[in-house]
Parts: sequence; C-alpha cells; structure tokens
Amino acid sequence: MSLYSKILVAVDLTEEAPQVLRKAVTLSQQNNAELLLTHVVEPVGYAYGGDIPMDLSELQDQLDKAAREQLAAYGKEYGIAEDNQIVAVGRPESEIHHLSEERGVDLIVVGSHGRRGIQLLLGSTANGVLHGAKCDVLAVRIR
Amino acid sequence: MSLYSKILVAVDLTEEAPQVLRKAVTLSQQNNAELLLTHVVEPVGYAYGGDIPMDLSELQDQLDKAAREQLAAYGKEYGIAEDNQIVAVGRPESEIHHLSEERGVDLIVVGSHGRRGIQLLLGSTANGVLHGAKCDVLAVRIR
Repeated sequence: MSLYSKILVAVDLTEEAPQVLRKAVTLSQQNNAELLLTHVVEPVGYAYGGDIPMDLSELQDQLDKAAREQLAAYGKEYGIAEDNQIVAVGRPESEIHHLSEERGVDLIVVGSHGRRGIQLLLGSTANGVLHGAKCDVLAVRIR
Repeated sequence: MSLYSKILVAVDLTEEAPQVLRKAVTLSQQNNAELLLTHVVEPVGYAYGGDIPMDLSELQDQLDKAAREQLAAYGKEYGIAEDNQIVAVGRPESEIHHLSEERGVDLIVVGSHGRRGIQLLLGSTANGVLHGAKCDVLAVRIR
C-alpha cells in the first residue's frame, strides 16, 4: 500500500544533507512516489532592509549558483529529474510551504537536530515547517 | 530497503486517532517494523498541586481504564500485540520521549493539526515531541 504520491525533501547544503536525502529517496521508492528536492537560499539583503549593494547582489547570485550545482549533483546521484530540483529564495518555512502546496506534495521531509535550548527559542526549520504545513512532515533526526 | 525497525505511534482518543494509526500501521508493514501504540493520560491532579482528593483519584482511574480499553480495541483492529499497547500518565512529550528511548524506537508517529495562532503559542504535542526526540518524527496532518 502506498502512503504518499509526491514527496518534497528540503536540504541544507551541509555534509548532513545526505542523511535526510537518503531517507527521502527510500520513502519515495517504498511508496512509488515522485521526489522533489529543494534548497532555500536565505536572501542576503534581509539585514540591509531593501537596497542591496552590488556586491551583495553578486553574493546572492553566487549562493544561488552554488545551490543549483549542489542540487544538480544530488539529483544525479539519487536520480532526481532536473525539473524536480528547485532552488528557492526566501524564508525556508514559507518557501517550503508554498512549494509543497503549489506542487501538490503530500509529505515534506526535513532534517532536525532535535536540540533544545537556543534552537528551541529561535525555532528550527523543522519546527517552522511543521507549523502551517498542509501535509505530513517527517523530521529526520541528524546524527 | 527498510528505514525503521521499531515505530511508536502516539494517539489521542478522539475520532481522529485512526488517521494517524493507519499510516503508522502501513509504515510498519512497509518497513517490516515492530509497532508500539501509546496514549498518554495527563494527570488530573496537576491543577491541584499534589494532594488529589478521592474523587479525582477515581477520575484518573477511569481515564486510565478508558485509555486501556481504547488501545485494546485498536490493538485488536490493527494487530498490535498487548505488550505493545502502552498507557502512560504524565506530560505527553516527556512520556513519549521516555518510552521511545526505553524501547529503542527509531520513528515516532504523531498527529498534527498544523494550526497557527494559539496552538503556536501554547505548543502542540507534535511540536513538543519534535523537540528533544532522539529519533525521527512523522507528524501526520489531521484532516
């Protein structure tokens, strides 16, 4: 029996990403589900309140490019179609919610450090994704 | 490929519980995993700060008994062994964490209403379970 038909996995670009990605790949295989891969780049201009100096705009371009390259590499390794490799710019929770609704996703997979303390105060991405998600959310515990 | 070997599903006793339970059952089948079922009864004496009058103690017993009966009914319906039907008393998050560590669980499944607003302020059980969990957590969106 299949639980999910379209799974979105959201990764950061750290060495921990494959832990999350591998589980999403297995889940998509178990459920014969389409797999979408995303990374959300946070806008570098946020701290400057609007006008972005040229060097920041270039930095943003570089971050976007690095994200696209990393997703392409993961896509190749895990067999994820180019159309399903999505780099977004914005607040991670909002972009992940928006994308999952737009594409009709029924499961979002994100990494979670499960830490308490400062992260509990600031709110982790997993926590942010959980609130307001219109579909199931799997938080993969990073080891 | 199997992702999980021991899955704990935590349910409330509302009519929404089967939505969560059915997904946990399918996941346990897909992964050939053992399935544990729990309901955490919140202590009725919390509001009274210690000494529990006799009628409250009786109320607690009734809540425990109702929980045991409901879990037994679910256990029968979904083929969950009696040893894996666990009624705990305490704070849901703490009891779920404790139980999952004690029993070596690698996936916790809980329901989530995904609401914002007041529930974001108070913290939902799904949110509480996510923070501090030492394993993966699947939040099943209640419809």
